[in-house]
Amino acid sequence: MEEQGTTEQGTTAAEKPRRSDRTKSAILTAARERFAGQGYERTTIRAVAADAGIDPSMVMRYFGSKERLFEAALTIDLRLPDLTAVPPADLPRALVRHFLDRWEGNPTDDALLVLLRSAVTNDQAAARMRDTFARQVAPALAPALVPAGPDAPRRAGLVSAQLLGLALARYLLRLPAVTALTPEEIETSYAPAIAAVLNPR
Amino acid sequence: MEEQGTTEQGTTAAEKPRRSDRTKSAILTAARERFAGQGYERTTIRAVAADAGIDPSMVMRYFGSKERLFEAALTIDLRLPDLTAVPPADLPRALVRHFLDRWEGNPTDDALLVLLRSAVTNDQAAARMRDTFARQVAPALAPALVPAGPDAPRRAGLVSAQLLGLALARYLLRLPAVTALTPEEIETSYAPAIAAVLNPR
Repeated sequence: MEEQGTTEQGTTAAEKPRRSDRTKSAILTAARERFAGQGYERTTIRAVAADAGIDPSMVMRYFGSKERLFEAALTIDLRLPDLTAVPPADLPRALVRHFLDRWEGNPTDDALLVLLRSAVTNDQAAARMRDTFARQVAPALAPALVPAGPDAPRRAGLVSAQLLGLALARYLLRLPAVTALTPEEIETSYAPAIAAVLNPR
Repeated sequence: MEEQGTTEQGTTAAEKPRRSDRTKSAILTAARERFAGQGYERTTIRAVAADAGIDPSMVMRYFGSKERLFEAALTIDLRLPDLTAVPPADLPRALVRHFLDRWEGNPTDDALLVLLRSAVTNDQAAARMRDTFARQVAPALAPALVPAGPDAPRRAGLVSAQLLGLALARYLLRLPAVTALTPEEIETSYAPAIAAVLNPR
């Protein structure tokens, strides 16, 4: 996803953009950890810069303000697959598998956890979550909602509720009954529930 | 539910226990609002007492410490019905209906919202949520898990995940696709998904 059109002033050599990408990435990782652990109010540009091992002026150069840094930290690409390529009968399981891959595939990418945790307590993050649903989840799910119809968006909403609930129970609340399950067990048990909402009756 | 065995010292007249119940209830309501809005760290006994219109010493008398006040504020009775009395075919819908009644029936009781919001960011609250699941949800769901079997607790966990996700999407994140639904529409759409996990195959 585009990161708010930050200008790359002073880029002269071919190597520069890659180094600035690494710097931005390090800032975003540090920011996500701070925002997740301390919340928006108590997080400072100075602390984020220290965590990323750079000068606070660099954070300001790349992101402009704490608010814009927060906005960038909340920008998530769910990387939803093209569901039109998946046979309808396999769709519910494919969705659950993608969800688990996205949450568990890369342990150092805690951006999803940060977004969800922030969204529960911060209005700006909740708005970003609604935006992520509208721009990424709803369009990706549209072809899977069979039969289509006027209630398709609402069914997409309830499928999202099911997957968000799985994230909440497994990664945030850590209910033992849910953390005890292997990804395969979750796929097997949860896919029929997703199917019941995607394809009613 | 019992509130940590607070002693009612100085109770002499028959009216006293009821007045002290009202005072404790006012303190808990104020505490839940403060903890939900500001988090544990920034909430003070002084502020809670001011909100409840009483002296801070009364909060200390009833609850002893901020930590114990937080603990009491997180103590939730889900009031789950006796599911053994419900015909098996009606169980999934009855569960969804009870869930919606509990969340939407009494707008001034925001204890559930406080617990969920706190549990996402505070370890003590998350532990209380796990405890609530183990003591209230899992036993209540046990008779509804047909066929029973070694995976029954895990199915109870996945039913909880779905209901928690509904709470997250509808009351905390306020996804428009989910807030647009009437309780009856949610019952109709979500009950088959709950059934798919309660009674697999």
